[in-house]
Amino acid sequence: MRALLSVSDKEGIIEFAKELENLSFELLSTGGTYKLLKENNLSVVEVSEFTNSPELFEGRVKTLHPKIHGGILHKRIDENHKKQAKDNGILGIDLVCVNLYPFKKTTIMSDDFDEIIENIDIGGPAMIRSAAKNYKDVLVVCDVMDYQSVIEALKNERNDENFRLNLMIKAYEHTANYDSYIANYMNERFNGGFGKHKFIVGQKVFDTKYGENPHQKGALYEFDAFFSTHFKALKGEASFNNLTDINAAVSLAASFDKAPAVAIIKHGNPCGFAVKNTLFESYVEALKCDSVSAYGGVVAINGKLDKTLAEKINEIYVELIVAANVDEDALAVFETKKRIKIFTQESPYLLRSYDKFDFKHIDGGFVYQNSDEVREDELLKAKCVSEKCASKEELKDLEIALKIAALTKSNNVAYVKNGALVAIGMGMTSRIDAAKAAIHKACEMKLDLKGCVLASEAFFPFRDSIDEAAKVGVKAIVQPGGSIRDDEVIKAANEYDIALYFTGVRHFLH
Amino acid sequence: MRALLSVSDKEGIIEFAKELENLSFELLSTGGTYKLLKENNLSVVEVSEFTNSPELFEGRVKTLHPKIHGGILHKRIDENHKKQAKDNGILGIDLVCVNLYPFKKTTIMSDDFDEIIENIDIGGPAMIRSAAKNYKDVLVVCDVMDYQSVIEALKNERNDENFRLNLMIKAYEHTANYDSYIANYMNERFNGGFGKHKFIVGQKVFDTKYGENPHQKGALYEFDAFFSTHFKALKGEASFNNLTDINAAVSLAASFDKAPAVAIIKHGNPCGFAVKNTLFESYVEALKCDSVSAYGGVVAINGKLDKTLAEKINEIYVELIVAANVDEDALAVFETKKRIKIFTQESPYLLRSYDKFDFKHIDGGFVYQNSDEVREDELLKAKCVSEKCASKEELKDLEIALKIAALTKSNNVAYVKNGALVAIGMGMTSRIDAAKAAIHKACEMKLDLKGCVLASEAFFPFRDSIDEAAKVGVKAIVQPGGSIRDDEVIKAANEYDIALYFTGVRHFLH
Repeated sequence: MRALLSVSDKEGIIEFAKELENLSFELLSTGGTYKLLKENNLSVVEVSEFTNSPELFEGRVKTLHPKIHGGILHKRIDENHKKQAKDNGILGIDLVCVNLYPFKKTTIMSDDFDEIIENIDIGGPAMIRSAAKNYKDVLVVCDVMDYQSVIEALKNERNDENFRLNLMIKAYEHTANYDSYIANYMNERFNGGFGKHKFIVGQKVFDTKYGENPHQKGALYEFDAFFSTHFKALKGEASFNNLTDINAAVSLAASFDKAPAVAIIKHGNPCGFAVKNTLFESYVEALKCDSVSAYGGVVAINGKLDKTLAEKINEIYVELIVAANVDEDALAVFETKKRIKIFTQESPYLLRSYDKFDFKHIDGGFVYQNSDEVREDELLKAKCVSEKCASKEELKDLEIALKIAALTKSNNVAYVKNGALVAIGMGMTSRIDAAKAAIHKACEMKLDLKGCVLASEAFFPFRDSIDEAAKVGVKAIVQPGGSIRDDEVIKAANEYDIALYFTGVRHFLH
Repeated sequence: MRALLSVSDKEGIIEFAKELENLSFELLSTGGTYKLLKENNLSVVEVSEFTNSPELFEGRVKTLHPKIHGGILHKRIDENHKKQAKDNGILGIDLVCVNLYPFKKTTIMSDDFDEIIENIDIGGPAMIRSAAKNYKDVLVVCDVMDYQSVIEALKNERNDENFRLNLMIKAYEHTANYDSYIANYMNERFNGGFGKHKFIVGQKVFDTKYGENPHQKGALYEFDAFFSTHFKALKGEASFNNLTDINAAVSLAASFDKAPAVAIIKHGNPCGFAVKNTLFESYVEALKCDSVSAYGGVVAINGKLDKTLAEKINEIYVELIVAANVDEDALAVFETKKRIKIFTQESPYLLRSYDKFDFKHIDGGFVYQNSDEVREDELLKAKCVSEKCASKEELKDLEIALKIAALTKSNNVAYVKNGALVAIGMGMTSRIDAAKAAIHKACEMKLDLKGCVLASEAFFPFRDSIDEAAKVGVKAIVQPGGSIRDDEVIKAANEYDIALYFTGVRHFLH
């Protein structure tokens, strides 16, 4: 038995090599790996000696040799292959352990394109792909985390075809991931992120119980270990729909930096939000907006879930709480509640990944775009187009309304008063219908909208929404502007003495 | 100058080789490519002769040799590299033209796993990746479509670093695509499509003018040439939001096979739908549901857009029409209308891709799931849980309502009468609010809902929606059922003499 070890990440390689040696493997290696093994008293043959061919061009060509690839690729059960191998002095290589030059790491650490190019591994992927192709005869190991299980399989005679098949799949995932990253990097560097091909690569975090519906299978995939690093389930498992709701809830609750914000999400849209003096106060106010929809909703808390807040939340049934951090005695409050799920990021405030890109599946492909975000100075730079301008307090509410509107499905209209969402209409095909639905709901909830402000994620096409707003006592409005009837809209605002701001930035979200 | 040609797809290779020969390239080749070129009187050297090393193991090892990879990879401006090359008898290879074993095609044609494995190319990707890495010195050609531009660049001295850099990017896209397909295939075959890594790979169809909003860049990517094969723009360009609306519109209008269905979509949701005796009639009825929202909407026509229908549609402003096919005189109707966009699939009926999987971006990753669909027998197999059952006509309407509800954002309630959508509430955080909004809108539109049927994509949690339905004269309802208050809901249906069907299948869509 013969093993070829050639790793860029040297972690655990000495122990792995020792185990292989104990299992009577002859060891082959190159460059730094060879040196390290030699220094650790392992008996190892250098690849250049094995191939009788020198290492060339600063290591650009080392293992790209018939003795290496023939040794990996020949079928051990094929008599012709065996004869050819013998005739050509090709010895079998039965285990290939390779990890690749750190291309991704290099792109993060350096902007030097020559250095980046030099970190594209050529020999490594070729060996991994060869070994994976011949998985019936060869073990391919490309992940440090697999060293132990490979040794155990070898020791306990569990190195069967199925074991090697799983390593094969992992190997092609590895090379696919490597080249996808290279291609995406090149397209980001040279084509503004919109090259001829786009590779969206995810690593599975977990399978969900099912997809959006029980007859669909589903799973969560992550880009850069965001979920596995930052999300911890303290109670229960997140469903597929929980995950999209958590996304909406955290995005909104994290919108005000360190402020004690609380968001309540149902079916991907906010049905409650507030940022008051304390998280407790924020939750109480957020719940008032639509306590009916909040039933079974997802609550995001931009800070600590303590016992008092937990007891308050426990008064109704919410399906899931995601809090930046959670006190132990807060967790204890829900001990007897089977259905509630609790997640934490173990951080002082809620964290986001802030992906630069966003995409949506459509039948036959996907649409891809730069992410949308409300700029911190968006309201500050908005133009007051009405005679009246907003008070300082109203401006604070406008900021909140603007951020809520940007994170709610179009068409939407969000009404905010004293730091809390008091009414919201969303997801409708007509803006005025969304405005009316919001007001209708607020009436049902017996909320007084008088003195509130309003944001719309896109312009009001007609004055009708202003007329509706005036009826309930809206004092200030922010919207992008840009309708051909802006004049009519401004005129309406002036008639009602409403402060009207145009940001010039639309935030459609579908 | 020396070129290595080794292609699985032989299209255009003879002409390409002849041009290279005329440009004084020495040609190297392997196997079938060598034979073909030789037969066509090209002077070509076999790789095994060039490397002085035999082709091994039925072609598994041919080009994995230092003379090939050294020839590609050494830096021509580096004196040490030059000396090493000379000392080791390594001759420069300045152009690498490789396309790969047809792995994907093999998986489509065959289920024989050994044959599939044999079609994983090892030598090809290694050469492509080597040549791409050394793009400063080497032209890498992996697409038949590039033969001509490469020859032109060589003839006109436009073979500069930037030209080669673009080929380099394409090369890594090519190898990334190849291994992504292998990894996905293996995970579909062995892990039910939910392996450790998921590769979503798209090929760009076009850049959109902007993304969901003007400050975002956007583009359309496709999986298997679905859009480039089946969508033709007759007038105008699809925007990012048009594309998602087209997706919703076509999905809905194609839901009834060859029936003359028309769907009107706004912000991703239906605001009109009908399937009557003719497309003209269907459009007229579809428009009645919410003619206000239909303004600026996307209309999908499951059949031919003829002149009469075009003239009818032209009475209001719709932003985009997508029709299975379009008569020339229908197109002429819109000649003077600058803003309208017209797309066709040039097919008798609307086509869908029917992707097996669906995914959604969330910050830090994505959720992935099997696609949802209303099964053709879903209503047929639904259980009538009320005393009264639906008439044949009502069943037809229930089928329509069910399919609309499954393609509308949750929470939704869809009301259908005589083959046409007459009211719809969607995208809201509460189901009863969606039901009420729909009814409110229908009143505004002066539509008589009496005798209509209703579908909800998820169960009614309370009897309240049934109470609301009864008020407007709903005669039959279809919903999944499964609420702990199903008894209460059934009781309400019986009180109002409404036929109530439970499908057992939820269709949340967020």
